[in-house]
Amino acid sequence: MTYCVGLRMKRGLVFMSDTRTNSGVDNISTFRKMHSFEKPGERYITIMTAGNLATTQSVISMLAERTKAPEERNPSILAAASMFQVAQIIGDLLRETIRTREQTGLNAETTFNATLIVGGQIKGMEPRLFMVYPEGNFIEASHDTPFFQIGETKYGKPIIDRVITASTSMDDAIKCVLVSFDSTMRSNLSVGMPIDLACYSRESLQLGNMHRYDEHDAYMMRLRQSWGEGVRRAFAQLPNPEW
Amino acid sequence: MTYCVGLRMKRGLVFMSDTRTNSGVDNISTFRKMHSFEKPGERYITIMTAGNLATTQSVISMLAERTKAPEERNPSILAAASMFQVAQIIGDLLRETIRTREQTGLNAETTFNATLIVGGQIKGMEPRLFMVYPEGNFIEASHDTPFFQIGETKYGKPIIDRVITASTSMDDAIKCVLVSFDSTMRSNLSVGMPIDLACYSRESLQLGNMHRYDEHDAYMMRLRQSWGEGVRRAFAQLPNPEW
Repeated sequence: MTYCVGLRMKRGLVFMSDTRTNSGVDNISTFRKMHSFEKPGERYITIMTAGNLATTQSVISMLAERTKAPEERNPSILAAASMFQVAQIIGDLLRETIRTREQTGLNAETTFNATLIVGGQIKGMEPRLFMVYPEGNFIEASHDTPFFQIGETKYGKPIIDRVITASTSMDDAIKCVLVSFDSTMRSNLSVGMPIDLACYSRESLQLGNMHRYDEHDAYMMRLRQSWGEGVRRAFAQLPNPEW
Repeated sequence: MTYCVGLRMKRGLVFMSDTRTNSGVDNISTFRKMHSFEKPGERYITIMTAGNLATTQSVISMLAERTKAPEERNPSILAAASMFQVAQIIGDLLRETIRTREQTGLNAETTFNATLIVGGQIKGMEPRLFMVYPEGNFIEASHDTPFFQIGETKYGKPIIDRVITASTSMDDAIKCVLVSFDSTMRSNLSVGMPIDLACYSRESLQLGNMHRYDEHDAYMMRLRQSWGEGVRRAFAQLPNPEW
């Protein structure tokens, strides 16, 4: 399984992904699921992936190859005119990758499907955030729904629902998503540390703060402890049932 | 969908279930999913149901009919020698009910499956709590895992994981499960009010406190407000990210 969250607030974008991949519970590895592309001063793009690892690695590799010689290898996400076109390029590539595998006529135990979150900003335009489906189509985050989750989405959704709005600060967004990951990892073993974080500040047009949280990360440990105590305190203050 | 939670603590049993059933989002009704049986002073049994409504209503009706003339209609859960045998009777009946429907050769859009939570106590024996699968087999709650959930289990699991142990008081258990239902109902429209609660105090051998919480229930409103404020306070006290 996987857990990735992308947020689009007024102040910027936040991306967080776990790194656990598994093929059954007896075959677990660590792979990066977050990939960033930039032309500093001109554009910034981050992609997060959930689903079949061969599919998602293939999509990311092809996108990366194209960016190295965009004149020869079109279309490149570093040359696209808008974030909408970036999402279209990625969606087309994802659909084609899945279709090519399925057309071999071989049946794998798992499907070749994958779902992506794509966000970024191009100079002179608004930051945008998309969720791209295996069929190649996509939806965009809005003021009303400023976040997308992929993978194991349910355990960590209540805290995001309660906290995140388009006006949330970057620091609060990071804290909220870390709590969401903590809840998910407690309940689903197939979502695991380390966690990758990428923050993009609006109009910066370059990679912002990035961090990898592992099990021994001091901040993560303090956050977990503080949240656990806070929840217990909130719980202790609940009114007693009446009959 | 459905959401039901059963808890077995040292001090007794707590059962909570929603009442929403749906066949698509355009066909929603309210049905009771919690059914209690008792011989005051001798035994107490509560059953909660998730899954195909025709299946679960049939199982409950057959169990109820048998209790009315247990001499003629065996086996009755009010005559069984132990809670283990109660679970066996219910499991057998559930499996047969599903099998009978499937053997008609007709295909329904949904399956006939259902899953149940069964708990209770018989005089001179310990209170026990089971989860009964469509195949008729079942598992029992233990000191390590003192609760079962059926239906839409994920949104509401983190708070139960954090709070509930075998030593939790009855009042705390009720509060925790109400918070769990609140989180679930916020995220999944197919889980809805009113919520039924049944509490059984160890060795009482009769129905204990029962309550139905609807949208206008004053306690439920205060609990929701207090929890919302407590979570926001816990969130505000989290340490800020370091870079």
